[in-house]
Amino acid sequence: MTPPVRGFPDAEFSARLVRAQALMAIAGLDALLLTTEPEVRYYTGFLTRFWESPTRPWFVVLPQSGAPIAVIPGIGAHLMAQTWVRDIRTWAAPDYNDDGVALLADTLREVVPGGGTIGVADQMESHLRMPLASLRALEAAIGTRRVTGDDTITRRLRLLKSDPEIAKITRAVGAADRAFDRVPEIARAGVALSQVFRDFQGLCLQEGADWVPYLAGAAGAGGYGDVISPATDVALVAGDVLMLDTGLVWDGYFCDFDRNFSVGAPTAAVADGHARLIAATEAAFAIARPGALICDLFHAMNEIVNPDGGASQAGRLGHGLGMQLTEWPSIIAADRTGLQVGMVLTLEPGVTLPGGKILVHEENIVIEATGARFLSRPQRQEIRVI
Amino acid sequence: MTPPVRGFPDAEFSARLVRAQALMAIAGLDALLLTTEPEVRYYTGFLTRFWESPTRPWFVVLPQSGAPIAVIPGIGAHLMAQTWVRDIRTWAAPDYNDDGVALLADTLREVVPGGGTIGVADQMESHLRMPLASLRALEAAIGTRRVTGDDTITRRLRLLKSDPEIAKITRAVGAADRAFDRVPEIARAGVALSQVFRDFQGLCLQEGADWVPYLAGAAGAGGYGDVISPATDVALVAGDVLMLDTGLVWDGYFCDFDRNFSVGAPTAAVADGHARLIAATEAAFAIARPGALICDLFHAMNEIVNPDGGASQAGRLGHGLGMQLTEWPSIIAADRTGLQVGMVLTLEPGVTLPGGKILVHEENIVIEATGARFLSRPQRQEIRVI
Repeated sequence: MTPPVRGFPDAEFSARLVRAQALMAIAGLDALLLTTEPEVRYYTGFLTRFWESPTRPWFVVLPQSGAPIAVIPGIGAHLMAQTWVRDIRTWAAPDYNDDGVALLADTLREVVPGGGTIGVADQMESHLRMPLASLRALEAAIGTRRVTGDDTITRRLRLLKSDPEIAKITRAVGAADRAFDRVPEIARAGVALSQVFRDFQGLCLQEGADWVPYLAGAAGAGGYGDVISPATDVALVAGDVLMLDTGLVWDGYFCDFDRNFSVGAPTAAVADGHARLIAATEAAFAIARPGALICDLFHAMNEIVNPDGGASQAGRLGHGLGMQLTEWPSIIAADRTGLQVGMVLTLEPGVTLPGGKILVHEENIVIEATGARFLSRPQRQEIRVI
Repeated sequence: MTPPVRGFPDAEFSARLVRAQALMAIAGLDALLLTTEPEVRYYTGFLTRFWESPTRPWFVVLPQSGAPIAVIPGIGAHLMAQTWVRDIRTWAAPDYNDDGVALLADTLREVVPGGGTIGVADQMESHLRMPLASLRALEAAIGTRRVTGDDTITRRLRLLKSDPEIAKITRAVGAADRAFDRVPEIARAGVALSQVFRDFQGLCLQEGADWVPYLAGAAGAGGYGDVISPATDVALVAGDVLMLDTGLVWDGYFCDFDRNFSVGAPTAAVADGHARLIAATEAAFAIARPGALICDLFHAMNEIVNPDGGASQAGRLGHGLGMQLTEWPSIIAADRTGLQVGMVLTLEPGVTLPGGKILVHEENIVIEATGARFLSRPQRQEIRVI
C-alpha cells in the first residue's frame, strides 16, 4: 500500500499524457481540448477550489505529440506554474470582448494541422465548461479544423486508478469511516437535522477531510423519501431512520458512502430492509473480480433488493469513484464493462419498504487481481442504533 | 430587514417566471431551457448538493406562457415535488441509450411551435450542463425549432436580489464574520496551513454555515503568490501574512469575502499595502449608489491600488454575489452597468508589494436607494495581528 502523500510525481502525469496520446493516434485526433476541473487536473495536477466560480473558462490543450499547453486566466498562472506544465498562456480574464477564444484558437492552429480534429468530451457524464457562444466563435476561428468527440479517451483512462490515487481515496474513506463512528456524539432525538448535518461536516474535517463537497441525507419515520435532499430544521424523533451520505475529499480524491442509523430501536421493516441492503452489498462484493461485468454486480444486488424485478429510484446500484463524487461506469443492467484491476466502485443498493419509504446503503470497493477489497468498513446486517 | 427563513414563498418564484416570460416575449423566445444548478434553482427552488455528481443532466423548460416543466432523472422527483413545480417528467437515468433527450424533445415540441426558438444561456459565465452529443441529438429531434441564446434573460433577473435573497446572503456573511473573528483560536506560528483551513471550515459550520463550498487562501512571508491555492502542509511562521477567503452558504446563498492576518507584527510594506486595500474599498463604497456605473467602482479602487495604471492579477476588482460565489457583473473598466437597488457586490482590490508578493482584500455590499451598505463588517486599515 503506497502511503498517501499530496500531489503526484511528474512521472504520473507524463504517463497519463503518453497513454492519452496513444489513444489519440488510434482515434485519429490531433489534439484534446480539456475544459472541466477533473479533466484539467487529471493531466496537469492543477488543484484548486476556484472552479466554484463560474466566471472564467479554463483550457488545456493536449497535442498529438509534445507537452500540454495551458490556456488560462491570468489569476491561475502562479498556481499552474507549480505543476509540471511549462507552456502556460494567459489572458486578462474576464475580458468582455474576447474571453480567451482568440488565444485558444491561436494555440489550436499552432498544434493542429488544417483539416485536423480536436476532441472534446461529449459523452454521458460530460459537459463543455465554456460558453456556447465561445464554442461557436472558436469553431469559426480555427479554419478547417473541426471540434469533435474525444472518443471517451479521458474517461477510459480515469476508469483505472493508480496505486497513489487509490491511497488518496483510501485516506478520504478512512476519514469518513471515523466520522460516521462519531455520529452518536452529535445525533439524538431533539436535534435538528440541519444541526446534525453541520456537526457531521465538522467531524469529517476533524477526522482529516480537506473539505466536504457533498453531504446529503434524510431522516424519517421508518425510512426516507429520497437521498439527495439538503437538511431541514426538523428535529430527529424516536423511530426515525437517519441517513448520512458524504463525499469528502483528501488531496482532490473523494470517498462516497453512507450510513443509516435508527433513532431508538428499528421497526421490523427497517431492520429487515437494512439486512437486505447488506446482503445485497455482500453478494456483489463476492463476485467482484477481474473478468466479471458491471451488469453482474447489478443483478447480484437487484435480485435481493428488487426480487420482483422492479427498479430502484436512483436508477442504478452504484458507480465509479475517484476525482469526482460519481464517475463512470454506472452499475446498471445495460453496462457490460469488464471489471479490471484498479477500478474503484461504490456498491449502492436501495430498497423500498412497505408504505413507500426507502433505505439506501453504500460501500466503496477497489478491484484487485484476486477479487474486491472493501475500502470502507463493511457494515453488519443490524442497523446502527443511536 | 426581512428575517431569514429557509425557502421562498411560491409568489417569489411565480414573479420570477412572469418577469422571465415578459423578457422572452420581447426577445422573441418561445421557451427557455435551463440546465445548470443556479438557473434551475432560481425558477423552481430545487436545492440539493446532488449537482456535485456529474452523471445526470437536469432540465427545466420555461414556456412563453404557463408553468415551468421539470424534465429530470427519477432520483430527483421526490425533492422536486416539494417545490412549486407541478409538471414533473422523469426518466430512469442514467440511461445509456437515451439519457433524457427524447423526453426533453417531446416536451419542447409540445410547448414550442414549429419554427420557434428555445433560449439557452450562451454568454460569459455560462455553460450548458449536458453532454454536447445530447445537444446535437436534441437539435436533430426538435424539427424546425432552433436552440439559440437566451438574450441574458436569467442573468439580468438574477442581478437584482429581492429582500428575502439579501436576508439569506446577510446570514451567510454573518457566519463568516464570526468565524473570521475566531481565527486566533486556530492559527498561530507552527500550525500547518492545511490544519488552519480544516479548522476554519469547522468554525464556519459552528457559526451557522450550512456548508462551505469555497475556501482558498495562502500564507507567505510578507504576502502571497496567488489567491486560489488550496492549503499546503507547511506550518505558519512569524512574518507570514495569512489570507483566508471563504464562500460559505446558508440556504443556498453565498457570502464571499476574505481577511488578512499578520503572524506577529507586520512589515512596513504589508502594513502599507493593507491600508491601501482598505482605502480602496472605502473609496468604492463611498460612490456606490444607484446611477453610478460599475466601472466607476473599478476606477475608484484602481487609482489607489494601481496608481501607475497597472492591472491586478485577478483581472477584476470585485463582482456580483448571490446564488453563486461569483456572479455577473465584473468590476472592470469595460463594465458600464448602472448600479441599481438590490445589487449585491464584492469589492475586492489587490495590491502588488515590492518583490512581487500580493495582498487582496474583499468586502460584501448591497446597493440601496441612498447608497451602499456593508454586509460584511468593514475592516480597519491596520491588518489584524495573530
